Amino acid sequence: MKLLRFNDGHIGISDGNKVVDVTRLCASSFDEWPPVGINRLIRDYPSLRTELQNALQSDAGVPLEAVRLQTPVPWPNKLIAYPVNYYDHATEMASRGLANLQGFFLKANSSLSGPADAIELPALPGREVHHECEIALVIGKEGRQISVEDALDHLFGYACLIDVTIRGKEERVMRKSYDSFTPVGPWIVTADEIADPFNINMRLWVNGELRQQANTRDLIVNIPQMISIASSATTLYPGDLIAAGTPAGVGPIWDGDVVTIEVEGVGRMRIPVVAGKRGTNVVFAKPYEFKRAG
Amino acid sequence: MKLLRFNDGHIGISDGNKVVDVTRLCASSFDEWPPVGINRLIRDYPSLRTELQNALQSDAGVPLEAVRLQTPVPWPNKLIAYPVNYYDHATEMASRGLANLQGFFLKANSSLSGPADAIELPALPGREVHHECEIALVIGKEGRQISVEDALDHLFGYACLIDVTIRGKEERVMRKSYDSFTPVGPWIVTADEIADPFNINMRLWVNGELRQQANTRDLIVNIPQMISIASSATTLYPGDLIAAGTPAGVGPIWDGDVVTIEVEGVGRMRIPVVAGKRGTNVVFAKPYEFKRAG
Repeated sequence: MKLLRFNDGHIGISDGNKVVDVTRLCASSFDEWPPVGINRLIRDYPSLRTELQNALQSDAGVPLEAVRLQTPVPWPNKLIAYPVNYYDHATEMASRGLANLQGFFLKANSSLSGPADAIELPALPGREVHHECEIALVIGKEGRQISVEDALDHLFGYACLIDVTIRGKEERVMRKSYDSFTPVGPWIVTADEIADPFNINMRLWVNGELRQQANTRDLIVNIPQMISIASSATTLYPGDLIAAGTPAGVGPIWDGDVVTIEVEGVGRMRIPVVAGKRGTNVVFAKPYEFKRAG
Repeated sequence: MKLLRFNDGHIGISDGNKVVDVTRLCASSFDEWPPVGINRLIRDYPSLRTELQNALQSDAGVPLEAVRLQTPVPWPNKLIAYPVNYYDHATEMASRGLANLQGFFLKANSSLSGPADAIELPALPGREVHHECEIALVIGKEGRQISVEDALDHLFGYACLIDVTIRGKEERVMRKSYDSFTPVGPWIVTADEIADPFNINMRLWVNGELRQQANTRDLIVNIPQMISIASSATTLYPGDLIAAGTPAGVGPIWDGDVVTIEVEGVGRMRIPVVAGKRGTNVVFAKPYEFKRAG
């Protein structure tokens, strides 16, 4: 099943063809603030599954292409991210002195955007903004100090995720937390729809040109290990997101580009890139000279 | 006025003597999940202020000492943190090669704990866990690209905050995001109760011995600047927390210690430190040898 948000906060389920509105099952209204209804739907999914499956069969719904999709979980407890997490990209970044296999970091919830939103480039002349192709893991069941063996029991589902990053020497979390820098979607696919978490293909194109491709079999820290490590430090809650790190091929995006990401069995998003007028501050006041390898 | 959470999720206001339960004004129930009622109370405070002031006068309430206080905002959109932010500590950390004046990072919401909770040391033999004495800024009004001049209009109030940190070379965000690593409280004091944001004293003691003291006049990036910089990258929402960075005097805490923090005009918290049995993972599997200056 696919869980999604659409049309200014409505919460829905989909079979890939139609959308059935289930806002009433998890939120006081579609415009509840903060927008945490879908966190409840994820938490309560085991007890609601039959009801949801029946609704998806019996309710006419609306055609999927008639709705405006939004980022599926806009206000998780946290948006965890793993740095450099594929063997090829580790080699690429190590050559620039940037490799780091030392745990996780975070991105701001407010950086989350959806499949119908653009990536807004900040007005920082001389800076490169890069695309990173990732798979998002969605936590389903609360837990702390989860073993690798139990980790998949806490995994609710998957989504496509683009980790957008300003290259530079400033705090990485800040460089990755600009509004619109974490497109996620087009929905969450429940874990039962993915046959093998250790064999998921993903690809990313810029203007139709293939730039990144990877398979989860090549992860340095694999999916159960990522959940286990994150939970060793923090309590994971339903709706928590984990960005699983990027493979080789990261590169700059510019005003007018279109970034397309596809995760096999999950879906595809086509995200335009636009130049914004915001984002300046004293931290980025000095232009950054990118150090090239060698 | 003081805004607080108490007794398993109730939301209250206080004059420092009694607590009046105002859960009904901002939450469907005291055990609403996720616990975001106080985010709404902060957002709606301007329109509710008169009603709240009247309630605080006319309602008998319960004595403050009869309730168990909890962390005031357990599920903000984000918990922003500024590194090294006082001139004395910048000098101290620079001598260890650790100074960093390059923007903000984040801590996990799930690291937030309250004035009645202990700091749980992770079971990581050979690692030092340090206290950092900070003031928390609470955002009241949503905004993006807020100017320094307008920044105080977006500031709702203040709280005491201890930024607990495992020293080491691993990802800093992970080392700072362990459960219980961000005690905040004992409540939020609204900004109107602090005469001068550029002259707030704070102190931290371990077992009664003074370890850190600072005044906001010695901040490198001051309060309006912190709000402005954070908002240049991210939309700030009501309830967002900013940990303003720590002065000199950070040091280790051990099982059985008691950490006391006081921010003048805000309040005081007395936090015990206990040894936990959780927190191990492959990232911290190797003991870290702390590099001393010189």
